[in-house]
Amino acid sequence: MYKIGIIGDGYTAAELLRLLAGHDELQAVMISSTENIGKNIGDVYPHLRAYYNLVCQPTDLEQIKKSCEAVFLALPHGLSVPMVKDLFGAGIKCVDLGADFRLQDVNTYQKYYETRHEAPEMLAQAVYGLPELNREAIKTSQIVANPGCFPTSAILPIAPLLEAGLIEHQGIIIDSKSGVSGAGKALKASSHFCEVNEGFKAYGLGTHRHGPEIAQELSRAAGEKVEMIFTPHLVPMNRGILTTCYLRLRPGQKAAQVREVLLEKYQAELFVQVLEEGVTPNTKWVYGTNFLYIGIYADDDTGNVILVSALDNLCKGASGQAIQNMNLMLGLEESQGLRGLGIYP
Amino acid sequence: MYKIGIIGDGYTAAELLRLLAGHDELQAVMISSTENIGKNIGDVYPHLRAYYNLVCQPTDLEQIKKSCEAVFLALPHGLSVPMVKDLFGAGIKCVDLGADFRLQDVNTYQKYYETRHEAPEMLAQAVYGLPELNREAIKTSQIVANPGCFPTSAILPIAPLLEAGLIEHQGIIIDSKSGVSGAGKALKASSHFCEVNEGFKAYGLGTHRHGPEIAQELSRAAGEKVEMIFTPHLVPMNRGILTTCYLRLRPGQKAAQVREVLLEKYQAELFVQVLEEGVTPNTKWVYGTNFLYIGIYADDDTGNVILVSALDNLCKGASGQAIQNMNLMLGLEESQGLRGLGIYP
Amino acid sequence: MYKIGIIGDGYTAAELLRLLAGHDELQAVMISSTENIGKNIGDVYPHLRAYYNLVCQPTDLEQIKKSCEAVFLALPHGLSVPMVKDLFGAGIKCVDLGADFRLQDVNTYQKYYETRHEAPEMLAQAVYGLPELNREAIKTSQIVANPGCFPTSAILPIAPLLEAGLIEHQGIIIDSKSGVSGAGKALKASSHFCEVNEGFKAYGLGTHRHGPEIAQELSRAAGEKVEMIFTPHLVPMNRGILTTCYLRLRPGQKAAQVREVLLEKYQAELFVQVLEEGVTPNTKWVYGTNFLYIGIYADDDTGNVILVSALDNLCKGASGQAIQNMNLMLGLEESQGLRGLGIYP
Amino acid sequence: MYKIGIIGDGYTAAELLRLLAGHDELQAVMISSTENIGKNIGDVYPHLRAYYNLVCQPTDLEQIKKSCEAVFLALPHGLSVPMVKDLFGAGIKCVDLGADFRLQDVNTYQKYYETRHEAPEMLAQAVYGLPELNREAIKTSQIVANPGCFPTSAILPIAPLLEAGLIEHQGIIIDSKSGVSGAGKALKASSHFCEVNEGFKAYGLGTHRHGPEIAQELSRAAGEKVEMIFTPHLVPMNRGILTTCYLRLRPGQKAAQVREVLLEKYQAELFVQVLEEGVTPNTKWVYGTNFLYIGIYADDDTGNVILVSALDNLCKGASGQAIQNMNLMLGLEESQGLRGLGIYP
Repeated sequence: MYKIGIIGDGYTAAELLRLLAGHDELQAVMISSTENIGKNIGDVYPHLRAYYNLVCQPTDLEQIKKSCEAVFLALPHGLSVPMVKDLFGAGIKCVDLGADFRLQDVNTYQKYYETRHEAPEMLAQAVYGLPELNREAIKTSQIVANPGCFPTSAILPIAPLLEAGLIEHQGIIIDSKSGVSGAGKALKASSHFCEVNEGFKAYGLGTHRHGPEIAQELSRAAGEKVEMIFTPHLVPMNRGILTTCYLRLRPGQKAAQVREVLLEKYQAELFVQVLEEGVTPNTKWVYGTNFLYIGIYADDDTGNVILVSALDNLCKGASGQAIQNMNLMLGLEESQGLRGLGIYP
Repeated sequence: MYKIGIIGDGYTAAELLRLLAGHDELQAVMISSTENIGKNIGDVYPHLRAYYNLVCQPTDLEQIKKSCEAVFLALPHGLSVPMVKDLFGAGIKCVDLGADFRLQDVNTYQKYYETRHEAPEMLAQAVYGLPELNREAIKTSQIVANPGCFPTSAILPIAPLLEAGLIEHQGIIIDSKSGVSGAGKALKASSHFCEVNEGFKAYGLGTHRHGPEIAQELSRAAGEKVEMIFTPHLVPMNRGILTTCYLRLRPGQKAAQVREVLLEKYQAELFVQVLEEGVTPNTKWVYGTNFLYIGIYADDDTGNVILVSALDNLCKGASGQAIQNMNLMLGLEESQGLRGLGIYP
Repeated sequence: MYKIGIIGDGYTAAELLRLLAGHDELQAVMISSTENIGKNIGDVYPHLRAYYNLVCQPTDLEQIKKSCEAVFLALPHGLSVPMVKDLFGAGIKCVDLGADFRLQDVNTYQKYYETRHEAPEMLAQAVYGLPELNREAIKTSQIVANPGCFPTSAILPIAPLLEAGLIEHQGIIIDSKSGVSGAGKALKASSHFCEVNEGFKAYGLGTHRHGPEIAQELSRAAGEKVEMIFTPHLVPMNRGILTTCYLRLRPGQKAAQVREVLLEKYQAELFVQVLEEGVTPNTKWVYGTNFLYIGIYADDDTGNVILVSALDNLCKGASGQAIQNMNLMLGLEESQGLRGLGIYP
Repeated sequence: MYKIGIIGDGYTAAELLRLLAGHDELQAVMISSTENIGKNIGDVYPHLRAYYNLVCQPTDLEQIKKSCEAVFLALPHGLSVPMVKDLFGAGIKCVDLGADFRLQDVNTYQKYYETRHEAPEMLAQAVYGLPELNREAIKTSQIVANPGCFPTSAILPIAPLLEAGLIEHQGIIIDSKSGVSGAGKALKASSHFCEVNEGFKAYGLGTHRHGPEIAQELSRAAGEKVEMIFTPHLVPMNRGILTTCYLRLRPGQKAAQVREVLLEKYQAELFVQVLEEGVTPNTKWVYGTNFLYIGIYADDDTGNVILVSALDNLCKGASGQAIQNMNLMLGLEESQGLRGLGIYP
């Protein structure tokens, strides 16, 4: 049983605790907070009350280094950098659920996150934590940059097609729709029930921070800079991301290959399910799970390819994937703690 | 006071009655039904009970021709054709909220709606009822084909840019998101509360019937066949459509012109509001109203143009626009009965 | 056209503006704010953008006294008292949508609202603004205390039965369920979308501020202190209150009289609709309207009476009723600006 | 590993499969259907696709008797009776999630369910399956009548107070609020998304079938017939029941005893959690779990007691409790397969 620390007490931290309660080899022994110090986590999150008796602590890295063998950081961007640096130095494995180690180009980070990166030299140590694309590197890494929720939903379906040379590198359009928990627990007008319920909107056109993250990974898969647009939208629901990707077949490529390439890539993967022809996913199908489902539409006449992916932004889009990464880093069975089925309806 | 008949008693008929209750010159004197014959409309739709004392009738065209000066048909596709033909012969003005007179090409209609068109010779009589693009023809027409909800949301923002020669005619992507009332009152698994709530999905990829309707009108604006994809999605909310349109500037055109063209086109229009730079609409802003709001993102560096439009699918997307068309056909002030403000929040 | 000022810019203020846009004799000429000073109200509330060109002002009573003939105060409790006192002195008619003038007993006010009442001597000037029960007094008043949303939903159905001596004065149970807009626009954890959506809870057991308000008015109707419990619950929806009232027939009284008394009381009232036997209301039926619907269950065998009422908390429960009161105070037709039908579905 | 059959393929069957996927000693080997015969259950319920490869069968009792050691019946009322009789004769243990074996009085059953009971002689064999109140009898029974969702939410909080003689036997008011999945997967107008969303209503006043079931069990606890009212309401959410119970202290009893009695009763129970003073539950806290949370308000001055309970109608209110019962019947650890934490937010 590995002793695990969690830094942060927002929704992704709560989701880590939910999943770890069913994990046979990871035990959450510490959770740190700023607003709820001294409160039992079961009072902060009453759905956890029957299984946890953990009191929220201030973040004390010395203490964490003594009591924890690995750490999840679930913090707003900018805050993880010095902590990860310190924990890394002490040999503690870290999965950072925030954005600080995702972008390899520090200038891009500083432009989009409007903050100085305090330890750019650490970026080379961090592995981008998409296990299905990057498993071996994750296994031996000390720092995993857990991907953003939107990027996970876009990269997993598209990257194999780029790698296979099937689709054009220009004009990629990624139209994503997310539930509200992706915006976190913080109070803001845009998360007020009445401002969200019975409404639908786009936001962050051309400026959302997950744009360059997606571009980085798709370009890595393509072997050159791809040209893409990413537009997120807000859905009046708690959980779930559906991403609709518009791609174009390269000349000479066949629509049928799209399915073949994705089936081949993911046939041995538990968590990525390629759906049958004519079936596109509903985010409900993966509610509360670590699955990503992919539906495919591809048409030889027009060359159009549409991929529709669904995941749970708090699970495969955040805490579930973080545990998947941690399992790999610690040499555990990759799906430990993540085999729970989704809630439906 | 014109005497008005309504054929059909689904959600769009209910919305017609709601709006007509506040209309000074149109009076609903007849509503016909198949399932609710003999019931007072206030028992079928209790929100109408204080203002209406109308009993649902079987559809009796002879009676309608005697008692009504104009008729709204709010029926599933295929049913309107013989009725409109008969009413037209008697000189009764018709607004058909269904799909039977929207597609000028009868083969396209028969392919997408999987039914024979019983009176293709009547298609030439029908005017496509988008008042902001087609006002003069509507004024003198006897039959208005009221546009589909998705097409309204896509054509109004895009058509002026095609007319102005600003954007490419290929690779137009229309990603739409609709509330559930667009699927009507009929009972189907895909409208069951538990199947919709806390979920989000795409549907009808590459096959939705509103695709050829949009293509027809965009091609008309472009002066040649445009190439586009249309993908609808289902949002867990009652009302509202948000459409995200991905376009590309033609070489030599400037991003700033997009706003200029749309402002110029719609400056005198009450019901189409072009939003300020950096503002994209929420469907909540037009809830229960006949407005369409348009937000614009356009970027010279990449040539990308994103238009985001919002409307209420039952109002500007159906019954509100139908009344707007009827006002024009009868020579009334165009916004009569449609000036009510939206419900918020 | 009366010139009207609105002090406050929360949801009830927005609802006043929505309704006043359709009012032929009241014109909103001023809105004051603390957070949005200098912003056009159409930017704060984009659903208003086509009809208003009002810039939010700081609250300047001298200016208001010059430019307005009557004022709506839509403020958190405690803030209205000095303003109403000042405006009253200047002969300006006031409808206070807050709680400061509702409770006639200043000690009860101070206990439940945990604040000192700055002008208890003014309480005698204020009339409790339930037009259906209190119309004549409202017509001649200068200050109307607009009732709370929950109290409106409970008092209108129950008071006539108490007045008629039909029901017991003890053991009255009022179980109310409200949409989230009743909690206002302020940011609080309990209004965060994810904390509300897909959940249901009770709150304020035995302590909610609307309890003594309901007790005051029911006791007035009964002619003696009634004994009652009031429990509010939060429904994951924007608008609407459903109140379920559990009452007991007095010995010798008949179940049928319950309907008779309520029908008699409200037969001439537009805004209170007593539903047919076996029909209980849905809050959807009054969405966006000034109606209150009442359903009745009464059983001679057990003596049990259940009344179920539905209203829109922002309309009949706040701003609609406020306009109804203002119409009465100014000698206008009572339903002016309030005849719009509800949005459905 | 016990081989388990499931008869029926509605929401409670799907929930059984979800929970059994995580159960170490029960294996679902057969599911029967009427509408989906021949379909893989992973196509009917795509959230199950990664874990099940079961094809829906017609209900063949002979086959079931050969292949299954125990059976869950998840059927509309009336259908279970002959099947349970047959399976019982073959020594197969049955948990019936329907209503056919809940009411001990066959006349009450026939009146409320409007159908003849085909085997009233079997009623004596059935044990009412509330493990926390009835554990020993369940362990040795062959037929468990799994309680209704509303009854579970009402009986668990109230029964111990009746047993302890703390509260009056008259005037018990049970005001329940349920999510939509309680109405099942069948298509009906009252489950249409647009008819439910953004609305709230009561239904079944004085006539709901769960009324006599609650009365039966509360009367059993009280040792005499109690007098109570039960009113259900529909909440626009998928899952969850919140029940607000209004009770009165008997003369001489103290409010503090309410908490003491419930704590004492449930201190050793995992699945019933009595919350701290001042805390009332939200249905979100038990979403997807087998927990029931109870909040208590009790006041010596007035003698009023309010209990608020929360459960997930598909889990503790149906399939979770069914598995809890089956675990007991088969001599397994009672919480096997039921220790998953809830989804939040």
